[in-house]
Amino acid sequence: MVPEMVNGRKTIPYQGVDNYKPEGVFAARPVASCADYPRDGNKQVKDLKEALVKAGIKSGMTISTHHHFRDGDLIALRLFAIIRELGLKDMVWFPSASFPCHAPLIDYLEDGTIHHVEGSMNGPLGRYCSEGNMKGFGVLRSHGGRYQAIQDGEVHIDIAVIAAPTADTFGNANGLSGPSACGSLNFALADSQYADRVIIVTDNLVPFPCVPWQIQGNNVDFVVVEDKIGIPEKIVSGTTQITRSPDRLFIAELTAKFCETVGLLEDGFSFQSGAGGTSLAISTYFGDIMREKGIKARFARAGSNQFLVEMMEEGLVEYILDGQTFDLEGIRSMRENPMHIATSPFTSYNYHSKGNFAGMVDIVILGATEIDLQYNANVVTHSDGYLLHGIGGWQNCLFGKTVILPVPLFRDRIPVIVDEVTTFCGPGELIDVIVTERGIAINPLRKDLLDRVKGSALPIKTIGELKEEAERICGKPEKPRFTDKIVAVVKWVDGTVIDTIFQIQPPHQTNN
Amino acid sequence: MVPEMVNGRKTIPYQGVDNYKPEGVFAARPVASCADYPRDGNKQVKDLKEALVKAGIKSGMTISTHHHFRDGDLIALRLFAIIRELGLKDMVWFPSASFPCHAPLIDYLEDGTIHHVEGSMNGPLGRYCSEGNMKGFGVLRSHGGRYQAIQDGEVHIDIAVIAAPTADTFGNANGLSGPSACGSLNFALADSQYADRVIIVTDNLVPFPCVPWQIQGNNVDFVVVEDKIGIPEKIVSGTTQITRSPDRLFIAELTAKFCETVGLLEDGFSFQSGAGGTSLAISTYFGDIMREKGIKARFARAGSNQFLVEMMEEGLVEYILDGQTFDLEGIRSMRENPMHIATSPFTSYNYHSKGNFAGMVDIVILGATEIDLQYNANVVTHSDGYLLHGIGGWQNCLFGKTVILPVPLFRDRIPVIVDEVTTFCGPGELIDVIVTERGIAINPLRKDLLDRVKGSALPIKTIGELKEEAERICGKPEKPRFTDKIVAVVKWVDGTVIDTIFQIQPPHQTNN
Repeated sequence: MVPEMVNGRKTIPYQGVDNYKPEGVFAARPVASCADYPRDGNKQVKDLKEALVKAGIKSGMTISTHHHFRDGDLIALRLFAIIRELGLKDMVWFPSASFPCHAPLIDYLEDGTIHHVEGSMNGPLGRYCSEGNMKGFGVLRSHGGRYQAIQDGEVHIDIAVIAAPTADTFGNANGLSGPSACGSLNFALADSQYADRVIIVTDNLVPFPCVPWQIQGNNVDFVVVEDKIGIPEKIVSGTTQITRSPDRLFIAELTAKFCETVGLLEDGFSFQSGAGGTSLAISTYFGDIMREKGIKARFARAGSNQFLVEMMEEGLVEYILDGQTFDLEGIRSMRENPMHIATSPFTSYNYHSKGNFAGMVDIVILGATEIDLQYNANVVTHSDGYLLHGIGGWQNCLFGKTVILPVPLFRDRIPVIVDEVTTFCGPGELIDVIVTERGIAINPLRKDLLDRVKGSALPIKTIGELKEEAERICGKPEKPRFTDKIVAVVKWVDGTVIDTIFQIQPPHQTNN
Repeated sequence: MVPEMVNGRKTIPYQGVDNYKPEGVFAARPVASCADYPRDGNKQVKDLKEALVKAGIKSGMTISTHHHFRDGDLIALRLFAIIRELGLKDMVWFPSASFPCHAPLIDYLEDGTIHHVEGSMNGPLGRYCSEGNMKGFGVLRSHGGRYQAIQDGEVHIDIAVIAAPTADTFGNANGLSGPSACGSLNFALADSQYADRVIIVTDNLVPFPCVPWQIQGNNVDFVVVEDKIGIPEKIVSGTTQITRSPDRLFIAELTAKFCETVGLLEDGFSFQSGAGGTSLAISTYFGDIMREKGIKARFARAGSNQFLVEMMEEGLVEYILDGQTFDLEGIRSMRENPMHIATSPFTSYNYHSKGNFAGMVDIVILGATEIDLQYNANVVTHSDGYLLHGIGGWQNCLFGKTVILPVPLFRDRIPVIVDEVTTFCGPGELIDVIVTERGIAINPLRKDLLDRVKGSALPIKTIGELKEEAERICGKPEKPRFTDKIVAVVKWVDGTVIDTIFQIQPPHQTNN
């Protein structure tokens, strides 16, 4: 069930993985002219307020920010404080993701400064949306889907405000250095290319040229210098931690063993693995196997972190193609090593492109909150029905050659494998393997993998068997109850609507 | 005098340096979809013919190539041989520049395979056009103007054929390695972004990822591997040569002295200098002064070459922002040194952008075939009226802070300073200084420079005095005679038509 209109735009319902054929042309900005910009390239103005006013900010506009600063972002709050001060109303906030630090924006949603958030809503904002309090619909997109939506003109950004750890007065910017260093700035790439007006806010101004220019000054209107744009210890962690949970370590080891057994770990292979505790453990087990076999990976897609950097520096991984940097070692490596490359949602994930990197990855490790018997999975809502996570690159990564979901069989006595996912985020035909602490299920579509595990010692089960086992232990949990009020939609990578999220039935339970 | 229509498009006459305000939006390609491309990213097809056919090539299409291979290009001829073999007619060839090696394309213009060349026409093609033999008009654009024309939709490229020294099967490509290494591929950037179909032709296929991706595979439709795509020794010279002419050396030294005297050589300054013999000598003199003063340049814009690379490696220049690489040392440096950066016509020169790099350069050294008493200059025709050169980045560089034209007072007994330039390519208000072997003329608009040379030993003269001196020595040459048939137009950086080139009056003289 998909609403006909979402935030004033007609929707197209999901039509299957590769079936929807887009029409029309990419979005196009008005032709700019150097005559309207200082010839000496200096676009610095006094402060963010002046930049916003010069950019022609008005009520009802769509304003974007990026989430490379994660829970250490100071710019979104400052931005909306200025907007409130200017007396503007009904803004659309279009972040590449939101974090708990953005909880104070609920006040701005309440007083009408912000009409709705068009982007992932984690934690407090997710709860606010799930309880039916937001005026517009939430629209959840993958990283690639956000690029696609901007590129295709589905979302028009009036003003992009890009927090930049390093920049010059021309507007060239990167995330590699400075007190707020975050690695890549590429989640803001589409914003810089397609927004009418682009404002760079930095706390580390350097003389032209700021190199590399992850964001190109040629797309920037104004540059603002502020004292402090982020909280370093909340932007990246000093160190990333491998899980210490014996169950998770076992799942990680089993995942690595599975990959080895079915022949996925061959010289020149590639893998994508996140920076969560289990993913890190899997990469580490991969490393052990690679050393033993004397092979190396051609590239790893990341979420970079110290463990992956160590593997590259040891020579186990030739290239890191990195969408976002999770710790200080990741940033150092991206700054120093030309084989550690900042990739963008355009190169990696954009589905409305002449191909992208996602399909070239041999082994993709992802998580899920729920998986159903058809291997369909959910990543945005909890089993209690609350919006909890953004999609991130999850949907995009499903196009990898072998997609593996290492998940615990249950969390807080709630089984992960269910009859039907609360929210349908990813089609089962793209999900190949589920690895749990009590066995591995292989999607029947992957006959090749089923063949290759024959005779192995791996604990292969059907997904039904895994589900029954979990339910024997935990029982079958009650389903969350919803009203018929739609609060958000989930987009597929091609811009179609794959599922709808409904308001939680009051009285609001907080069964976390 | 400007024709109303050029090759079927309405023209806008030149309106002054910064006066024309563009309307409309940037060109936009049809929305692509990954569904139409192989999921594993492998876009390789058998050969160029198959790629062209799959790209839907038809009579009348506009096909582009780049000129990074200079006189060693093998692809343009191969391309049109296939087009002729396919029996297609009336193609528009839209190169980023043409070279003497493209002379055989005159046959294709003769037999109707090519309707006209929309791009610079050097040597034999220039002569062919000047003599009124080409069906359509020649349209001469600067490097930045070519980007602008594509971006603004003035020229729509149906198929871009991009020769790539290194590429992967996804279409990521660069010019840094392989037998045909040429350095940057950025003259083909706009082609890759805006053409309907993009074909990469390489003789050096590497496993994904081909890094760095100067051309992004996400914009590429097909990849072709051929045995040999260029002639290395004609792509770049092994070594670049400083002029040995005493006159030219004197001009170079005088130019450097002038810059020092007026205070342009200060710590953190920037300069742009080409790879011609005189320009190289000027850079070398700059180096001497910098060593003596203990200063360094923040960046040099290039045309890179061994001399500039040596300066960077010595620590005299922090960054090289490089539009094209002229010798093997330039290529090595761009490959190895992250502070030697391949820039594109988008970053450096595109006038229909939110600023570009051109205006940030302190000292710009350029050439000219003719300069008039108002400092207007010509770079495309010789004093005999024949089309000889492309504009290159020349018009774009005029936006630098101080533009200096070091030129001999006469060439082959033809004075360079004239009453009126044969072709008006650059407005005198942007040209600051003329340095000749017999004196320096400063544009009266630059009162600051005139003040700063007061009391110096520099041989300052008026441009009128320089002209008289040349005419005393050489006499006043006869003007070329033209018919009233227009053969080409010259565009200004904003897409307006700044001048018109007429057919040479027959009988054709070959007074070179």
